[in-house]
Amino acid sequence: MGKLSLSRRGFLGGVGLAGFGAAAGAAAAAAATSEGTPRPSPLGDAVPFYGRYQAGIATPAQDRLAFAAFDVKTTSRAELVDLLRTWTAAAAAMTVGAAVPGDSTSLDAPPADTGEAMDLRPAGLTVTVGFGASLFDSRFGLAGKRPAALADIPHFPGDLIRPEISNGDIGVQACSNDPQVAFHAIRNLARLGRGTVALRWSQLGFGRTSSTGEGQATVRNLMGFKDGTRNIRGEERELLDRHVWVGGGTDQAWMRDGSYAVTRRIRMQIEAWDRDFLADQQDVIGRYKASGAPLGGHGEFDTPDFAATRADGEPVIPVDAHVRLASHEQNGDLRLLRRGYSFTDGIDPASGQLDAGLFFIAYQQDPRRQFVPLQRKLAQSDALNEYITHTSSAVFACPPGVPGKGDFWGQALFS
Amino acid sequence: MGKLSLSRRGFLGGVGLAGFGAAAGAAAAAAATSEGTPRPSPLGDAVPFYGRYQAGIATPAQDRLAFAAFDVKTTSRAELVDLLRTWTAAAAAMTVGAAVPGDSTSLDAPPADTGEAMDLRPAGLTVTVGFGASLFDSRFGLAGKRPAALADIPHFPGDLIRPEISNGDIGVQACSNDPQVAFHAIRNLARLGRGTVALRWSQLGFGRTSSTGEGQATVRNLMGFKDGTRNIRGEERELLDRHVWVGGGTDQAWMRDGSYAVTRRIRMQIEAWDRDFLADQQDVIGRYKASGAPLGGHGEFDTPDFAATRADGEPVIPVDAHVRLASHEQNGDLRLLRRGYSFTDGIDPASGQLDAGLFFIAYQQDPRRQFVPLQRKLAQSDALNEYITHTSSAVFACPPGVPGKGDFWGQALFS
Repeated sequence: MGKLSLSRRGFLGGVGLAGFGAAAGAAAAAAATSEGTPRPSPLGDAVPFYGRYQAGIATPAQDRLAFAAFDVKTTSRAELVDLLRTWTAAAAAMTVGAAVPGDSTSLDAPPADTGEAMDLRPAGLTVTVGFGASLFDSRFGLAGKRPAALADIPHFPGDLIRPEISNGDIGVQACSNDPQVAFHAIRNLARLGRGTVALRWSQLGFGRTSSTGEGQATVRNLMGFKDGTRNIRGEERELLDRHVWVGGGTDQAWMRDGSYAVTRRIRMQIEAWDRDFLADQQDVIGRYKASGAPLGGHGEFDTPDFAATRADGEPVIPVDAHVRLASHEQNGDLRLLRRGYSFTDGIDPASGQLDAGLFFIAYQQDPRRQFVPLQRKLAQSDALNEYITHTSSAVFACPPGVPGKGDFWGQALFS
Repeated sequence: MGKLSLSRRGFLGGVGLAGFGAAAGAAAAAAATSEGTPRPSPLGDAVPFYGRYQAGIATPAQDRLAFAAFDVKTTSRAELVDLLRTWTAAAAAMTVGAAVPGDSTSLDAPPADTGEAMDLRPAGLTVTVGFGASLFDSRFGLAGKRPAALADIPHFPGDLIRPEISNGDIGVQACSNDPQVAFHAIRNLARLGRGTVALRWSQLGFGRTSSTGEGQATVRNLMGFKDGTRNIRGEERELLDRHVWVGGGTDQAWMRDGSYAVTRRIRMQIEAWDRDFLADQQDVIGRYKASGAPLGGHGEFDTPDFAATRADGEPVIPVDAHVRLASHEQNGDLRLLRRGYSFTDGIDPASGQLDAGLFFIAYQQDPRRQFVPLQRKLAQSDALNEYITHTSSAVFACPPGVPGKGDFWGQALFS
């Protein structure tokens, strides 16, 4: 398969007269399923869409994020199911770099695909869907299907959560190495959903950057510190099974092989942070800023020595350091799979300061025993709290992967 | 010079103990001046900072934009000059991938550099500065130095300009192939300016994407059309001299070899656009969506045939098509150097629709005879007006390039 066929260029060739013959081939290639950790696909930079698990969870984090939450506007269960079918087919196509299925070449109709990703490669696109607690109200007969783990996230001390950018019936995470590809995916799903769903909130983010030239080097967040050093990696299948994928013990069989996503928009008071001394910044995080090594250690991936003390008897890693409070060693082996993306949303009119920070996404088996107790502890004691504010919160039950063509997201929930 | 020295990693090595020795070498390399069009620098993906013209104007557009406008808060001319000196030195350093000058390793002080670009390459960073009309009021004794070409941009039919995200005393355009590098530049300039200037507004954008795999392929805007096909290119020196660089005829000698930047945040009603038929979309733009060829033509770079008529006698390219109204053939050879970036700023709470569009930057010799008459014509007649709204407007007088180390932006204005 030549290079050209990796791009969307072939699908709307010439001056708008070519058909979608090429797209069929690409869609067929996407049917290759992924068991466990997604592998590099034969389509160059495409990530397999179909599989046991949804892509975009254990997939190594792409560079860019476009996240959107939707509210369902129809009260028809059939319309909702139809939309999920349509969305699934569209996501499968976009994931291999094809256009949204349908006619994009008829002159006397709106093109099925909006077109801004027409010349672009798949760019590692993943589209990951989750259902919010509000979807399980009385509208669609799903009340009895709500998993106990899909509990509302409680209020934590210091939270300044804005309801209008929180929660939602359906959450969609699009990740890609190209921001235009990620945005194109969200935009086209929003468009396909018009009349059935409405956008509730959205968030763009950027992360691992292309210019490190070092592949999987740990990205720095906007505090200037490496973030994600101790994260679960896509190839750590045993850790994924233990902490991320929903197993046989779930109260709702439709969530088996799914995962729960908690999203938090974490605004950083970066102006205050920037005035802080380097020593204090390092004590707040518990790591050296330059190397990323834990305080007292030498390499980024050294295990933090939480018992080490200085000559004056104080711990080398302070008792309220973020890395200590968040560590699995200090939390009974509690772990989360994080996909954090930096955001910058212009200037906060209230303060005149940059509205920037981290859009935190954590995948887990059960937020009630993972995110919630961990965040309760952090909200109480983390030295970082002086410099951050959580302004948005959501939790979504992400169903298992779509097995193959013709299946759809959440099929088992509606059957 | 090895690969590692291209990144900022060397500048804050080890566990925070290494000095800035490496930075000195990098800064020296940046002193290589650029006459005319910036050339690829010996520092890999660094664009030369010093030169006759400011970089970031004729430089081929990088992938990402961070733009900020500042208002000056001091009334001291000396403080303003000091800041421009400091900013110039910081930009020169960041442009070669070095940290902001100063001490970033002392434990008992805030680091001079915020650190989030520490491991990243220069990534083509350019920082371009311009002065708004308001800087030439009575505060700094500059009233007599205001160029006539720095006239206020008038109101055009259909404009919905929000003053709080328009104009400003100083505009700073940071472009890079890495969003974190672009943001890092703006953030560190804002930080260095604290107390002297305050952020007024900012805008992020993305453009030419990394995944086309085709180098200088024309980027598509969020309408799905190729945008910039007929733009002036960095190597077209004769066109730059004629339309972009301020020449000897200027009323203010300090602007010689400078340029005027007009910025317009153009919101697209993309939901309405997405419902439009392909034939109508193509008639509105005057090009085929897929190929980018002008209507009636075959290749993207074909010269539009504005005289061609269909069998029914109507012009092939409609009289109100954007490409016709904006063409230099139909405007007495009027041209602009455009650097447009797509933006997506979440959801407009008023409409529930995506707040997305094009952040348009145009460089030119004199907005009074370039942008203003062109926009007056477009605002009256352009078929595109049905789908766009201008929500921010600014004009900045961008001084010539900084000749060498020790010089600063706008030096001739203040001497």
